[in-house]
Amino acid sequence: MNPNQPTRRRFLKNGAALAGLAVGAAAGSRPASAEPGEERIDELHKHGERSHFVQSVRAGSINNPERRLPGEPSDVALKTPLQDSTGIVTPASLHYIVSHGYEPPDIDPKQHRLLIHGMVDRPLLLSLEDLQRLPSVSRFYFIECHGNSTTAGPGGAARRSPDATVQQTHGMTSCSEWTGVPLSLLLKQAGVQKGATWIIAEGADANKHSKSIPLGKALDDALVAYAQNGEPVRPEQGYPLRLVVPGWQGINNVKWLRRIDLVDEPYMAMMEVSRYPRLLPDGKSRWFEFEMGPKSVITRPSGGQRLPVPGFYEISGLAWSGAGAIRKVEVSTDGGQTWKDARLQEPVISKAHTRFSLPWNWDGEQALLQSRCTDENGVVQPTLAQVAEHWGTSVDYFRETSLIISDLNAIQPWKINRDGSVKNALF
Amino acid sequence: MNPNQPTRRRFLKNGAALAGLAVGAAAGSRPASAEPGEERIDELHKHGERSHFVQSVRAGSINNPERRLPGEPSDVALKTPLQDSTGIVTPASLHYIVSHGYEPPDIDPKQHRLLIHGMVDRPLLLSLEDLQRLPSVSRFYFIECHGNSTTAGPGGAARRSPDATVQQTHGMTSCSEWTGVPLSLLLKQAGVQKGATWIIAEGADANKHSKSIPLGKALDDALVAYAQNGEPVRPEQGYPLRLVVPGWQGINNVKWLRRIDLVDEPYMAMMEVSRYPRLLPDGKSRWFEFEMGPKSVITRPSGGQRLPVPGFYEISGLAWSGAGAIRKVEVSTDGGQTWKDARLQEPVISKAHTRFSLPWNWDGEQALLQSRCTDENGVVQPTLAQVAEHWGTSVDYFRETSLIISDLNAIQPWKINRDGSVKNALF
Repeated sequence: MNPNQPTRRRFLKNGAALAGLAVGAAAGSRPASAEPGEERIDELHKHGERSHFVQSVRAGSINNPERRLPGEPSDVALKTPLQDSTGIVTPASLHYIVSHGYEPPDIDPKQHRLLIHGMVDRPLLLSLEDLQRLPSVSRFYFIECHGNSTTAGPGGAARRSPDATVQQTHGMTSCSEWTGVPLSLLLKQAGVQKGATWIIAEGADANKHSKSIPLGKALDDALVAYAQNGEPVRPEQGYPLRLVVPGWQGINNVKWLRRIDLVDEPYMAMMEVSRYPRLLPDGKSRWFEFEMGPKSVITRPSGGQRLPVPGFYEISGLAWSGAGAIRKVEVSTDGGQTWKDARLQEPVISKAHTRFSLPWNWDGEQALLQSRCTDENGVVQPTLAQVAEHWGTSVDYFRETSLIISDLNAIQPWKINRDGSVKNALF
Repeated sequence: MNPNQPTRRRFLKNGAALAGLAVGAAAGSRPASAEPGEERIDELHKHGERSHFVQSVRAGSINNPERRLPGEPSDVALKTPLQDSTGIVTPASLHYIVSHGYEPPDIDPKQHRLLIHGMVDRPLLLSLEDLQRLPSVSRFYFIECHGNSTTAGPGGAARRSPDATVQQTHGMTSCSEWTGVPLSLLLKQAGVQKGATWIIAEGADANKHSKSIPLGKALDDALVAYAQNGEPVRPEQGYPLRLVVPGWQGINNVKWLRRIDLVDEPYMAMMEVSRYPRLLPDGKSRWFEFEMGPKSVITRPSGGQRLPVPGFYEISGLAWSGAGAIRKVEVSTDGGQTWKDARLQEPVISKAHTRFSLPWNWDGEQALLQSRCTDENGVVQPTLAQVAEHWGTSVDYFRETSLIISDLNAIQPWKINRDGSVKNALF
């Protein structure tokens, strides 16, 4: 709950206070040709807020000492409350945040510049206004942290718990309508030189987060985004500019974007070296994974919720794939013995969340709910046992590990008990 | 600008203050299984806000004395800043508001009920929780006030002015992803009796706004919506329930929905009788119009903006039709002598805003920019002269009238002057 709202509303019901407020409000931003009555409009009518009865919030961890290395900035991992999600749009206020540093930089858009340089014929220095004059595209894309739904790292303990909520297990994915300039257009303007094969994207945060991205992806569908869900990108999401790299691990979607360097090999930027390689059971590590696999999860009913009585319920959830569009989602309510095709809500958009649903009559007995998706390449979301087999390990490895297995896209089972309680049944 | 944000951010940078805040925050809504570090998360990280550099707001009029009749509630008409819009989603904070009464009711969702009664076999009394168990759909729909872009009524003077912004001329349309239960499903459950031909939808506002809607439309695609853009419907938009009647005049989309009465004739509810009939030049009035015609408008560049120098610009705008999907948008930069097909941004969704764009090189000379759309039925957006001819009047009628011509979907011309200024050129 936003603590300001009820107070402000009550305040505004007092006519005298309203008159007082209006003077202050009008001084700042009153348009030249105000309409009659303009001066009486309070801030809440100019830019609204949700009802104070709505209390859904991001939750997670910051600065977890177990994960913090000497000299490293604070870790922030705040997750989207997927249990309350509807449709495919994530409100910007609730978009997940993973950040190495607590406070987002407070950037004046008039001062901000994007530099494109390195192996190019014509380096570019672009203001936000420059970018907004160029051809733009708007697309719905999910962004997902590669650590989402792993059993390790921040939130790993909660994720393994029978009491886990879907916010704790899967809350590091969100979906927005992103608007911006195709990076390919900017690179064409700059003139990429022969031999350039990678870009290094850098943010304006205190840590200068940097990420190496192959040139092929940069020229494919990457977007220099200045807007999200019809308004400027939010501070926690990279205001005023974010590089959106559709379908790829969240770390590629560089926030507070200020520099793109064309180079001939990937850089070993701090996070790429220290955090994001996938450590394998044999002690070797695997670098430069990018694309998120097909994943789905039932968001209602989900962990921590309770079905009040037997009877009709709609099973609803989200599916997505870094490779493209979702073609099919199947739902099982009997522990995987039988599967039914869920309804996919149109529009089904490539590299965006897809909402699925299935009508269900709960008979009051114990039940195990699972969803599995298939993407446009025919790749099917695996079970946890299949994931373990793929990596040459056992399910116990995921139960006990303290290492990050990135992109754990295993099927998520929710157990419905006879009392209606819903529990995480991953193990 | 939200006056709270910069203050809150500065405040939070003080560690002692942060610790103090956290105690208050944790008391209210800390989840049972908090993760490590949870107690340090401040409100802004739990539920974010936009940058304090972003100052786009709704604007318009309230309580215009010229329009207020004895005993009538206050009029509120607050418009969406379309000049700042991107993509097709309107942020809920900026969704236009037309309301007869200033403060939205403060409804406790646990107490709220929807009654479906009248000519039905089984009257239904539904809580929000009941509705959320039922099969749901999510769809992108525009909602537009039938008074949008008229030359009369609240904002009419601004709309006729050369200095008008697109917010003033067209800001009473917005587009959201609405989620809820199809009304057809509820009516089937209630069992509509033979002879019922209309529904009367009623809101829980102080004025009990009521609207007659033909049963055919109610059974077609009307939605009892509890969510908008991935979160509960905002208070100004009808929290906790809004009837969404796709493609039809805004007045049908009853906010704070509490009652649906099945009847055998339309009611003459206050607003239907006093405000919404279209008064014709011959003194007769036309009642029960519903569907919004095909309309488009260029949002950038638009009135009040300025092109700093000659050169490349993207012309961008929105198109929509109450009859279905937009098939084509054409743009002219030479006063209508030649037209080019604009690019339509996918997904193009029936009865939703569609974003269009066209690259343009401004040579620094005077130019007249216009857009015209064609919907899936082949209906083409008319010029103002064509609208006048249709109603058997002249263009001067629109310049001088003080009567509302509903759904004035005439082509909107913007004049670019040599100094780069953009002016409303409707007349």
